[in-house]
Amino acid sequence: MLQVPHLHIRQTDTKGRGIFAGLELHIGDVIELCPVVVIPKKEVKSIDQTILYEYYFLWGTQGDVCLALGYGSIYNHDDSPNAEAINLLDEAFIRIVCIRNIKSGEEITISYSDSKVSNSLWFKTTTD
Amino acid sequence: MLQVPHLHIRQTDTKGRGIFAGLELHIGDVIELCPVVVIPKKEVKSIDQTILYEYYFLWGTQGDVCLALGYGSIYNHDDSPNAEAINLLDEAFIRIVCIRNIKSGEEITISYSDSKVSNSLWFKTTTD
Repeated sequence: MLQVPHLHIRQTDTKGRGIFAGLELHIGDVIELCPVVVIPKKEVKSIDQTILYEYYFLWGTQGDVCLALGYGSIYNHDDSPNAEAINLLDEAFIRIVCIRNIKSGEEITISYSDSKVSNSLWFKTTTD
Repeated sequence: MLQVPHLHIRQTDTKGRGIFAGLELHIGDVIELCPVVVIPKKEVKSIDQTILYEYYFLWGTQGDVCLALGYGSIYNHDDSPNAEAINLLDEAFIRIVCIRNIKSGEEITISYSDSKVSNSLWFKTTTD
């Protein structure tokens, strides 16, 4: 059975699913390159009527947003995260990079503050 | 740099991005377990107004649909596919299973016919 060897999806106690390190990760490690689906600005109003409002990332400066594939949509928020999401606009990827050494078994978190519209409203209670 | 070792994302000639085997795969191999975001039936009309119409899978028999994370949204369609997408409704995953031996470097494809509403309209020309 083939699976991503260094990332595990597990239920967390309070935040629904989360991503956990399957091995020790070090500052600068590229944890994942997440392909994205870009949603043009004119469609965002429709997306906001759905559960995907809780998931999308801002994309560029023109009002587009994106859905992160890979495990990009499942990393939970932390005010003091151990990873960072970097938008690669030309390549249509989000790069998840380790910004603090992470032990095997530890949850991998990012900050939604700069990257998600919905963050202040929901991230403490979301089920994902 | 940590990446999924056995799956590569590459541009195809005519179908946008696709998923390619990074090693030889055999019938029965679980290629990937894709977490999904379930979109309830009442929100599908809003999703249909957006590019995500081209991406979602049917989910269960009550009119819900889902977006496949991991690389689940990027496998291209083939009438004679070498992999199959199996919905694990209770676990909220789609299992991608090898149904024909796949050589390293070969594109991994699934059939959209039974799993995607949009298939007959767009899959030959989609950019993903």
